[in-house]
Amino acid sequence: MPPRFHAPDLTPEASDVMLPPGESAHLTRVLRLRPGSAVEVFDGRGLLRAGVVAQATATRSLVTLAGRIEAAPEPAARITIVQAVLKGDAMDTVIRDATVLGATVIHPVTSARTNVRARAVQGSARERWERVAVAAAKQCGRATLPEITSVRPLAATLHASGHDASGCAGAVRLWLTEPGLTAQGSADVPMPPDAVCLAIGPEGGWAPGELDAARGAGWHAWSLGPVTIRAEHVALAALSVIRYAWDVDRRRIT
Amino acid sequence: MPPRFHAPDLTPEASDVMLPPGESAHLTRVLRLRPGSAVEVFDGRGLLRAGVVAQATATRSLVTLAGRIEAAPEPAARITIVQAVLKGDAMDTVIRDATVLGATVIHPVTSARTNVRARAVQGSARERWERVAVAAAKQCGRATLPEITSVRPLAATLHASGHDASGCAGAVRLWLTEPGLTAQGSADVPMPPDAVCLAIGPEGGWAPGELDAARGAGWHAWSLGPVTIRAEHVALAALSVIRYAWDVDRRRIT
Repeated sequence: MPPRFHAPDLTPEASDVMLPPGESAHLTRVLRLRPGSAVEVFDGRGLLRAGVVAQATATRSLVTLAGRIEAAPEPAARITIVQAVLKGDAMDTVIRDATVLGATVIHPVTSARTNVRARAVQGSARERWERVAVAAAKQCGRATLPEITSVRPLAATLHASGHDASGCAGAVRLWLTEPGLTAQGSADVPMPPDAVCLAIGPEGGWAPGELDAARGAGWHAWSLGPVTIRAEHVALAALSVIRYAWDVDRRRIT
Repeated sequence: MPPRFHAPDLTPEASDVMLPPGESAHLTRVLRLRPGSAVEVFDGRGLLRAGVVAQATATRSLVTLAGRIEAAPEPAARITIVQAVLKGDAMDTVIRDATVLGATVIHPVTSARTNVRARAVQGSARERWERVAVAAAKQCGRATLPEITSVRPLAATLHASGHDASGCAGAVRLWLTEPGLTAQGSADVPMPPDAVCLAIGPEGGWAPGELDAARGAGWHAWSLGPVTIRAEHVALAALSVIRYAWDVDRRRIT
């Protein structure tokens, strides 16, 4: 597979596209590609096209475009991950896994037990997360990038309505609980919903009042079962289950 | 939660237990515990007991035992992971995740595209994997360790029968395919089976002939759907789905 680059300016009709400086530096300095190299470019909104490097300098790389390529299929429903910000690399892991598993929106929040430095929730963190998402999309063949929102307090997201950036308004909202807090319910999630919003707590879990507040705001408590998974691996596990549960008819055993 | 130690000699009746040298070194040098510290000890076969450190030297630590503690519940079915050996840390990741998600047996195999150095499949690798499993069990509260078998060629496991060490004989055998290779079938896995055996390929995937050989030997092709997950994360995703699919009635939405 040719190396893949993110070109936000890509269109279906253009005959060429300029790569952003970061992608151009990656093309020339890391991969050491030269004019004539076959590449693929994606716009982050679902468009993927074949191309050939026409110019390559550390700051300016131009790609001559060829036909459209079919990207990895997107999930049938919109998926929002509401993730209580985790420490350092752990949050990068969540961004990577959520991108690979098809998240539409990643919405970082601060909760009662969020335990990170102030800079971990500032704009520079979001820029890093966006780079992590681009790298993950390249690896897994997805041509759509998740929208990564700014960090907000959990309380604002619990009551999301209307045009809220989290994407939780109108979605089936699932609240991942600790093992042992579940087996209280009866109603199943309607499958497949058009949109799901999944909230995942920080390393120290949700505070007792947060689950009550979530229930009061119409969220469904949900659990992966009696297993203790590290906080940064919950997104991968939960999204795998959600995608499987929705698409199970297309993935029968042969 | 008190720190937890692996004591293979633990019994339900004993009034004290000696820790193995490695665990004793961890207790004294890393955690710097002293006589009087509260601890928990597990035997790796499901028994977990409370205790208090009675003696602590780098090579000999004795724990005075108190009552039995309920460990994290084991899955209702036996789960074997047949994992084509991955490079370095990636295999450790699989061992850790399979332990956390309740695997009964981890059976490493070499397949056509296995791409690791010879020492990665030798006895010392297995000893390291066992240490990884112990560490994972401590973190997740599991008192049962998976059995980690010696590395064997894939072909021997495909046709496992009788008292085979892999645990695949008599189990529902699932063969994780690449995205795109599925959607050909119709029959569903009987849920819940008493035992399941799940085969996961190496970084480069299965060779074309291996899927045919597996089908011929009665394995079911299975897929997590149209997602490209890195080889070392497949075990976590697949085991999460399997546990969820089996136990779904106990985990309804509230």
